[in-house]
Amino acid sequence: MKLLRYGPSGQEKPGLLDAEGRIRDLSARLADIDSRALAPAALAGLAAVDPATLPLVEGAPRLGVPLANVGKFIAIGLNYVDHAEESNLPIPTEPVVFTKATSSLSGPDDTVMLPKDSVKGDWEVELGIVIGTRASYVEEADALNHVAGYCLVNDVSEREFQIERGGTWDKGKGCDTFGPVGPWLVTSDEVGDPQALDMWLDVNGVRMQTGNTRTMIFSCATIVAYVSRFMTLLPGDIITTGTPPGVGMGKKPAPVYLKPGDVMTLGIEKLGTQRQAVVAWSRG
Amino acid sequence: MKLLRYGPSGQEKPGLLDAEGRIRDLSARLADIDSRALAPAALAGLAAVDPATLPLVEGAPRLGVPLANVGKFIAIGLNYVDHAEESNLPIPTEPVVFTKATSSLSGPDDTVMLPKDSVKGDWEVELGIVIGTRASYVEEADALNHVAGYCLVNDVSEREFQIERGGTWDKGKGCDTFGPVGPWLVTSDEVGDPQALDMWLDVNGVRMQTGNTRTMIFSCATIVAYVSRFMTLLPGDIITTGTPPGVGMGKKPAPVYLKPGDVMTLGIEKLGTQRQAVVAWSRG
Repeated sequence: MKLLRYGPSGQEKPGLLDAEGRIRDLSARLADIDSRALAPAALAGLAAVDPATLPLVEGAPRLGVPLANVGKFIAIGLNYVDHAEESNLPIPTEPVVFTKATSSLSGPDDTVMLPKDSVKGDWEVELGIVIGTRASYVEEADALNHVAGYCLVNDVSEREFQIERGGTWDKGKGCDTFGPVGPWLVTSDEVGDPQALDMWLDVNGVRMQTGNTRTMIFSCATIVAYVSRFMTLLPGDIITTGTPPGVGMGKKPAPVYLKPGDVMTLGIEKLGTQRQAVVAWSRG
Repeated sequence: MKLLRYGPSGQEKPGLLDAEGRIRDLSARLADIDSRALAPAALAGLAAVDPATLPLVEGAPRLGVPLANVGKFIAIGLNYVDHAEESNLPIPTEPVVFTKATSSLSGPDDTVMLPKDSVKGDWEVELGIVIGTRASYVEEADALNHVAGYCLVNDVSEREFQIERGGTWDKGKGCDTFGPVGPWLVTSDEVGDPQALDMWLDVNGVRMQTGNTRTMIFSCATIVAYVSRFMTLLPGDIITTGTPPGVGMGKKPAPVYLKPGDVMTLGIEKLGTQRQAVVAWSRG
């Protein structure tokens, strides 16, 4: 099942994508795609609905973040061995955990705005895990049972803010518009093995990142189990799991950073694609 | 005005403290103390209410976090020069920003549970800033106009998780029960100058931390303006502003860490006191 939220920012309605790729409205079935909707029984109830009985949404509305009221937006750093190498950082012996501000969340095709005085904006195609049920000290073998589904995330980053301004990475990861998520929340049953998904990212049509989730250092199961030892994961939390090689910071002979006018397109097998136009900072 | 939330965890009702230190129920005036209640007009409306007209709450109920639906729980590190020195870390040239998981939030007198395998639990009395209105790229001179009020925070920390497990500090800061906040959200008008507040923390009745917010490296105004350049601050966000010297990690001749059975008591002038019993990990 591919769940989504469509409509203007802040006024999104719940929907799902039918087998023909059309949006069907779920407003009559649930108020929103939030933590309650992600409970296994609620998801099973939705899965039992024949999409043909749901109102068809005409046109091509804007898509929002495919789930509402995200409590935590956790991120894993350096989780692909080649990316750690291109970043000139040691390969981690346990997962690197940082946090993206929930205020950075934005729709999959919304504009990405470079922060004021930003000079090192960068891209990161990532697999996002959406938590479905409370997870605290869960075993690795049980971890994926706590996952409602997966989504495509662009972990947009400002490398100067992240690395050169002191303290933790969080400064360069949580700027407004730095968290495009979607187009869909694809339920676990439909994704199957999360460690066998091709992924890619282009800037202005030029391929920058190519990867597959099989080369993660720490698998989704390991990550959920690991993070659940440091904080309780709650329904609607998102964990984005790191990026394969090809970020701007690692380009040779010199780094390449985002500039206004650039367009990022990215995708992960089974999870859809995103497209973001990059714009300069302006007071919103 | 001292706003609070009282009652069992997850079922708190809104209230305020009257001039005699008694709890008055606000349920008839507002659903909860959340982002809407923190808007200047909403706060002015509450301030115009004669507490004597509100129902008196009998007994001494549990207090919860004094505001609901905290979106972001941001923290500033090493913001007192003496604490940076005791931590053997350089004095920062700009604020160190990290994140506490919102799932770590707990009431001011709730139990603090050491995580499984924790060996370096530690305490940090801190002044918390509660955002009242949206703040993005605000000037320092205007920053405090975006603050609804202040609260006492114990930035409970696990030093091994924070420092020795790789990655950012977030792993050792966001464990469940690591974010006692309250007893009250004290509105800005009643606090006056946030840079002139005495603060203290005892463990088992022995004074560990003594400080005053005047020795912050970066003032509350500077912090709000600074953080607002990296992420938009929204009503109900909390920024906790760092701790003065005297944490367990910095004790001589050897560090002192929390153990089950310990009791932390702490306070900040005008903002009330907290008391937490420390317990060993158990599956909740």
